Amino acid sequence: MTNDKTLRIGLIGTGFMARAHTNAYKRVGDFFPDLEWKPRLKAVCARTPEKVRAFADQWGYESVETDWRTLAARADIDAVDICAPNDTHAEIALAAIAAGKMVLCEKPLARTVAEGAPMVEAVEEAGVKNTVWYNYRRVPSVTLAKQVIDSGKLGQIFHYRANFLQDWTISPDLPQGGEALWRLDVNAAGSGVTGDLLAHCIDTAMWLNGGIADVSAVTETFIKERVHQETGKVQAVGIDDACIFHCHFDNGSLGVFEATRYARGQKAGYTFEINGQHASIRWDLHDQNRLGFFDHGDDSIVRGWRSIHVSDGDQPYIDRWWVPGLCLGYEHTFVHHMADFLKSLETGEPCSPTFREALETQKVCEAVLDSAASRSWKETGVNW
Amino acid sequence: MTNDKTLRIGLIGTGFMARAHTNAYKRVGDFFPDLEWKPRLKAVCARTPEKVRAFADQWGYESVETDWRTLAARADIDAVDICAPNDTHAEIALAAIAAGKMVLCEKPLARTVAEGAPMVEAVEEAGVKNTVWYNYRRVPSVTLAKQVIDSGKLGQIFHYRANFLQDWTISPDLPQGGEALWRLDVNAAGSGVTGDLLAHCIDTAMWLNGGIADVSAVTETFIKERVHQETGKVQAVGIDDACIFHCHFDNGSLGVFEATRYARGQKAGYTFEINGQHASIRWDLHDQNRLGFFDHGDDSIVRGWRSIHVSDGDQPYIDRWWVPGLCLGYEHTFVHHMADFLKSLETGEPCSPTFREALETQKVCEAVLDSAASRSWKETGVNW
Amino acid sequence: MTNDKTLRIGLIGTGFMARAHTNAYKRVGDFFPDLEWKPRLKAVCARTPEKVRAFADQWGYESVETDWRTLAARADIDAVDICAPNDTHAEIALAAIAAGKMVLCEKPLARTVAEGAPMVEAVEEAGVKNTVWYNYRRVPSVTLAKQVIDSGKLGQIFHYRANFLQDWTISPDLPQGGEALWRLDVNAAGSGVTGDLLAHCIDTAMWLNGGIADVSAVTETFIKERVHQETGKVQAVGIDDACIFHCHFDNGSLGVFEATRYARGQKAGYTFEINGQHASIRWDLHDQNRLGFFDHGDDSIVRGWRSIHVSDGDQPYIDRWWVPGLCLGYEHTFVHHMADFLKSLETGEPCSPTFREALETQKVCEAVLDSAASRSWKETGVNW
Amino acid sequence: MTNDKTLRIGLIGTGFMARAHTNAYKRVGDFFPDLEWKPRLKAVCARTPEKVRAFADQWGYESVETDWRTLAARADIDAVDICAPNDTHAEIALAAIAAGKMVLCEKPLARTVAEGAPMVEAVEEAGVKNTVWYNYRRVPSVTLAKQVIDSGKLGQIFHYRANFLQDWTISPDLPQGGEALWRLDVNAAGSGVTGDLLAHCIDTAMWLNGGIADVSAVTETFIKERVHQETGKVQAVGIDDACIFHCHFDNGSLGVFEATRYARGQKAGYTFEINGQHASIRWDLHDQNRLGFFDHGDDSIVRGWRSIHVSDGDQPYIDRWWVPGLCLGYEHTFVHHMADFLKSLETGEPCSPTFREALETQKVCEAVLDSAASRSWKETGVNW
Repeated sequence: MTNDKTLRIGLIGTGFMARAHTNAYKRVGDFFPDLEWKPRLKAVCARTPEKVRAFADQWGYESVETDWRTLAARADIDAVDICAPNDTHAEIALAAIAAGKMVLCEKPLARTVAEGAPMVEAVEEAGVKNTVWYNYRRVPSVTLAKQVIDSGKLGQIFHYRANFLQDWTISPDLPQGGEALWRLDVNAAGSGVTGDLLAHCIDTAMWLNGGIADVSAVTETFIKERVHQETGKVQAVGIDDACIFHCHFDNGSLGVFEATRYARGQKAGYTFEINGQHASIRWDLHDQNRLGFFDHGDDSIVRGWRSIHVSDGDQPYIDRWWVPGLCLGYEHTFVHHMADFLKSLETGEPCSPTFREALETQKVCEAVLDSAASRSWKETGVNW
Repeated sequence: MTNDKTLRIGLIGTGFMARAHTNAYKRVGDFFPDLEWKPRLKAVCARTPEKVRAFADQWGYESVETDWRTLAARADIDAVDICAPNDTHAEIALAAIAAGKMVLCEKPLARTVAEGAPMVEAVEEAGVKNTVWYNYRRVPSVTLAKQVIDSGKLGQIFHYRANFLQDWTISPDLPQGGEALWRLDVNAAGSGVTGDLLAHCIDTAMWLNGGIADVSAVTETFIKERVHQETGKVQAVGIDDACIFHCHFDNGSLGVFEATRYARGQKAGYTFEINGQHASIRWDLHDQNRLGFFDHGDDSIVRGWRSIHVSDGDQPYIDRWWVPGLCLGYEHTFVHHMADFLKSLETGEPCSPTFREALETQKVCEAVLDSAASRSWKETGVNW
Repeated sequence: MTNDKTLRIGLIGTGFMARAHTNAYKRVGDFFPDLEWKPRLKAVCARTPEKVRAFADQWGYESVETDWRTLAARADIDAVDICAPNDTHAEIALAAIAAGKMVLCEKPLARTVAEGAPMVEAVEEAGVKNTVWYNYRRVPSVTLAKQVIDSGKLGQIFHYRANFLQDWTISPDLPQGGEALWRLDVNAAGSGVTGDLLAHCIDTAMWLNGGIADVSAVTETFIKERVHQETGKVQAVGIDDACIFHCHFDNGSLGVFEATRYARGQKAGYTFEINGQHASIRWDLHDQNRLGFFDHGDDSIVRGWRSIHVSDGDQPYIDRWWVPGLCLGYEHTFVHHMADFLKSLETGEPCSPTFREALETQKVCEAVLDSAASRSWKETGVNW
Repeated sequence: MTNDKTLRIGLIGTGFMARAHTNAYKRVGDFFPDLEWKPRLKAVCARTPEKVRAFADQWGYESVETDWRTLAARADIDAVDICAPNDTHAEIALAAIAAGKMVLCEKPLARTVAEGAPMVEAVEEAGVKNTVWYNYRRVPSVTLAKQVIDSGKLGQIFHYRANFLQDWTISPDLPQGGEALWRLDVNAAGSGVTGDLLAHCIDTAMWLNGGIADVSAVTETFIKERVHQETGKVQAVGIDDACIFHCHFDNGSLGVFEATRYARGQKAGYTFEINGQHASIRWDLHDQNRLGFFDHGDDSIVRGWRSIHVSDGDQPYIDRWWVPGLCLGYEHTFVHHMADFLKSLETGEPCSPTFREALETQKVCEAVLDSAASRSWKETGVNW
C-alpha cells in the first residue's frame, strides 16, 4: 500500500459489473472530495487480450493482464476487485488474500457455503479489508429505510416481504453459458435466481430486519433444456428459473421472498415491504428515488402511505449530489459503496457487507435450495 | 307537505341524471336510517309517454306525467327535481317555486346569469328549500379536503389548480343535439365544457378556497361543424370544446382551470391541487377513494405526499357504509347530497350549494366565456 | 316457489354481510331491469328480537324470525341466505336444503372440509340452486381479468401471487369472540386469515388459473391470548393471525399467497398478479376500478404496464351503471352476483361459485392449515 | 482548435451548473467511447481565487482564472461554457464568440430578447458552434416522447399542458441575491420562475409541439420584500414568484403553463401532458425514468395509460448505460447533451437547442412577462 492514500485497483472482468465498479472508482472523488483515499485504475484483467485492452482504453486503466494470477500478485496493486463469474470468486479471492490484497467481490460471495467459508476465514486471518458489492443497500431510499427502522419508528416487526422479478429468460431460444449468459449455466453461476436475485433480497432483509432462522422453499425450472453456448449442444438447464420461500426471522417476524426471470413486464422488479407495529415501509427498485412509508401515528383522518421522494440534502448520501426533486440512478449505489469503503480505510472499521456477512446470506441461499430440493423446512444456521 | 315527514318527489327527466338522483332517493333511507324525512317517488315526468312509463316501472315511481307544468302543479308533490337539459331549468324552477315546491336542480343552475338570477330571487322570496346537485363536493375525499382546509392545516393558500378532462367528442362523426347529445348543442346547454365541466371545478374551488375575483380565459372549438340530430343538417358548433382560464381568488391565491373533451385517454379526469403555506392537497376523480396530502410539518426525512384511502369510519360519510379499505363510487355522492338535504329539512338550515351559491358559480362561468370572447380580463362580481 | 318469478328471500344474520346482501337484493332490479326474476325481502332472522326488528325496519324486510329453523321451514321463503358466523353454515344450509330451499351462503362454505362436504352432497342431491358469496370475482376489473386470461392473451402462465393484507387486529387490547369479533374466535370462525382472507384469494386464483395441487404453508399467531367477550376471561387465541403459502397449480405455474391482519397501513390490501408468457395482469382491491395489464406484444419502445380504468360500457357489468371514468364500489360486487344468480334461475345454469367450487377452495384452505401445522407439503386433492 | 479532436473546455462558474456540466465532460467518454471528440478540462474561472482553485482541484481542471475575459481570450481554449448568473451571459458570450470560441451557455440564453438577439447574431456571423443547456430534452423519456410524436402516433394535437412546481422560497426569511440566491434577485436573474422554470417548459414544448404564437399570462410575487444579501437591506422583490399562462401553438393546439416556487410538496415538479387525436403522452420529472402513454388504438377493453419504464436498450440513449429496469438520473441529461454536442462536431450539424432556438424560447418568456404586466394577450413573434 502506498503511503499517499492512493488505492491502486486491480479489476478482474470487463462485463456489466466491471463497468459499474469502474464508474464508481472514477466518480467517487468528484462527489466525495473530502475522503482521504483516492482510487487509481491500475490494472484490469480478462482472458481475451483485445477485449481487455479495449476496456482499459475506454475506461482509463493504466495496464492490462490476461491472467488473474499475475494481477493478484502484482506489487503495485492494493485491492483486487472481482467481477468475474461466480465460479471464480473463491479461487481468485484466496489468491489475492494470500498476496495481502484487499478484496472487493461482486455478489454473491461464492456458489456455495463450502466455497465461501474459506474466503471468510482467509480474509479474517489475513486481516485484509474486504467487502461484497450488495449495492442495493446504498440506494438512498434503502439506506433511509434502515435509518427509519433503527430509529424505532416501526416498533415490533411482523412481516417482511420481498420480490425480485424479471422477464428476460422467457424465450426458449435463449441459450445458456458463454460470456453473456453464464448466469444461466449452473456451473458458472452456482444457482439461478437464488444466487443472482434472492441473494440481494436476503442481504437487504437481514440488514434491515436481522437474521433469517429457517426457510421453506420451492424452485422451478420452466425451460428444461437450452443450447449451451460453449458446447453448442442442447443441455439440461441446471439453474432455478424461479424460487419462492417463506421464513422466520430471529425477531419473530414472518418473511416471504420470491424471485423469477419469468414475470412478464417486470424488468428489475425488486420490491420489499416491512410491516411493523407502528409503521410500515415499502420500496420498488423501478422507482428507486422513492420510499413508501406509512405512519400509524399520523392524525387518523389524514393518514396514508407517503411517497417520499428521497432527494433532499438531509437524506442519505443526497447532500453530495444535486438539489431536491432531482433523481439519482443505479450507478450511484456503487459510488456510495466505494465512498464508504474508502471511508473505512480511514476509520479502520469494516465496510459492510463484509465477506462474513455475505457468507450468512449464502447460508440462507443454500438453505433455500436445500429446502426446495428436499421439500422440507431447513434451518439456516445464520448468525447475524 | 305531509306531516309524516315523507318528501314526495316529482322528477323531471329520464336520462343519466334522473337515474343518479332516483338511486339516491331509494338508497338514502337504508344507509341514513336516522333521518326523520324519507323520500317517496311520487311522479316522474318526460315528454315521451312510453319512455317515462318505462322509467317509472324500472325505478318504482308511482305515477307519470308528460308535461312538467302538470307535475309542478300537483298537490301531492313536495319537491321538484329538475334533470332536464339546461335550457329548461329556469322555466321549470320558476313554475315549481310559484307552486310552493322545494326545488332540486341539476347543475349548472342555468345557461346564463340572466336566467339564473330570477331563480335565486324566486326561491328566496318564496322561502322554499333549494339545492343544486354539484355532487362532487360530497365525494368523501373532497369533503375531507374541506375539513382539512377548514382546520387550518394548509395555512395561507398560494395556488389552486383544477382540470376536468374528457375525450368523448374527438370524433367529427359525432352529431350534436337530440336527447343524448344536447350537451353539444349550444341552445340546449348554454355552453360547452364551461357550463358542463368547469362549473363543477368552480363550485368545488369556491367552496374550498373562497370567491374568484377575476378571470382571463381562452376557449376553443376544435370541430367547427357537426350534424344536428334534430335538423339532420350540418350546423356550426356553438359550444366551447375546451376552455382554460387563470384567475385571482379573493384570498390572494392564483387559480388555473382547464376543461376539455379532447384529452385522449381522460374519461372523467377531474383533478385539483391546492398549495398552502404548510401543506398541500390533491385529488383525482378517477381515484375518488383517495386524497393526496402533503404536510410540511412531517419529520423532514420521511416527508412525502400521502395517499389517503378515504374509507375509515372517522372520515366523512364513511361510517354509513362498509369497512376500511373498501371503495365507494360515483353514485354515493348523490346519496350523501340527499342525506344532507333531508337533514336540512330537520334543521331548517340551507342545503349547500343553494341556488344562490350556484349563481355565483354561474357568474364565474359567464365571466370566463366573456373573457375568452373579448380576449381580456373580466371581473366576476362574485360575492362568496 | 311462486310462479310469478319473485324470489322470496329469507336472510339469516344482521351484520355487515347481511347489509351487503340486502343492498344487492334491493338494487339489482333497478340496474338489471331485464332480469325475469326479482328478489323480495320476505324475512330476516337473528336471535335478538330488537335487533332483528330494527334491521327489518331499516331495510324493509316483511317479517322477522328469531330461530333460523323456523325461517328455513317457512313455506313463503324460496331462498335462504346465510350471513351468520362460519360455525352455523353447515347446520343451517342442511336444514334449508332439506326444506327444498335454494341456499346462498356467505363465504367460506364452512369451517372445514368435513363440514362442507355434506353441504355439497345435499345441494346436489336435492338439486337446489346454490352459490357462495365470493364477491370479488365480480369486481368488474377482476371479471375483466378473467376475460383477458380466457382470451389467451397471457399464454402459458408462470406465476400467480396474491396477498390479502389488513391491520385491524394489531392491538393486544382487542378482545376475541362476540358478535363483532367472532372472526377472532376459532370456534366460530374455524380459522383466522386463512378462511377469512385467503379463501377469497384462493377462490379468485382457481377461477383465473385453475386448480391448486399442493401447498407448503406457515402460519403465525402474533398475539397469543386475548380476552374472550363471551367468557370475560383471557383465553388462548386459536386462529392464525397470518398465513403464507406457496403452491403448484395444475397448469404448472407457481403460486404464492399471503394474508395477515398485522400489516400496518393495509386496510383491505387484496392484490394479485399473474405472469404469463405474453402478458401479465395485476390488481389491487384498494383501487378496484383499475386493472393493471402488460402486453409484451406492444411496440417495444412504448411498452409498459397499463392502468386500465375499468369504467367503459364494453367492460364487464359497466353498461348497467354510469359513464366512462366514474367509479363503482365494493357493494356493486354483490349486486352483480345477485344479477348473475337471478339470471341463472332463467337459464338453469349453476351460479358460480357453487357449493362444489367453494368446497374445492375449502380443501386448499385445509391443506394450507395442515401444511403449516405439520411443516410439510400437502396435496390438496382439489379437482377444479 | 487542436487537430487531435480534443475539445479544450473553459468553464465559467463554480456553482450547481458548473458541477453538472463538468460531470458530463468527465463521463461522456466512458459511456460514448465511439465519439471522435473528447473534452478536456482546461480551465475554470470564478472571481474568488480560493473557490476556483478548490473547484479545479476537486474536479481536475488544469488551470484557473479569476477574470472571464482572460479565459475567453486564452488560445488553448476551444469552447467556453457559461455557468454564471443570467446577467453575465450576453457579455461573456459575445467576448468568447469574438475570440472565435464555441459557446455552450446555461439556460436561459439571456435576461431579455434584447440581450439575447445580439448573441444569436454573433454566433451565426462567426459561424461558431453553440448550444444552450436546456437539459430536459435529453431525459431519455422526453427524447422518447419526441420520437413518439414525430412518428405520428398522436395525430393532430389538441392540448399541451406543463407545470414546473417547486416550494423552496415559501419562507419569508429567505434572503435574495448573493451567490446562492441570485435567482431571487431580478437584476441577476432577469425574471423569476419565468426565466428559470417556464423557460424549460417552453423549450420542451416548442421542441415537441412547435411554435407558440400568442400568450395570456398572470404573474404573482407573494413575498414582496426580502433582505438582499449584497446590501443587507430589505428590498422589494422584483421577480415573479409564480406565473401562469395559456397560449395558442402554431399548430392550433391550446397550451397552458404554470410555474411557481410556492407549491408546498413539489420539489422539482416539472410535468407535461400532450393530448392528440389518437394518443396522449404525460411525463413527470420526479419520476424521470417513466413516460406515460395512452394509445386509443389499443383493444378497447384493455386500453389504459401505460407507464413505460424507459430503461431498455432500444429507447433513447439507454444502450450506453445499464440493463433494463435500472434507473438513470438527473446528471445523465447533461452527459447526453455533451455526447450530442461532440457528435455535432463530427457531423457539422448544429447542436440543438442552438442560441437561435433559445432566443425563440426567450421571446415567449418575454411575451409572457409583457402579457402579465399589461393584462393582455401578446403575440410572441416566434418563428419555430
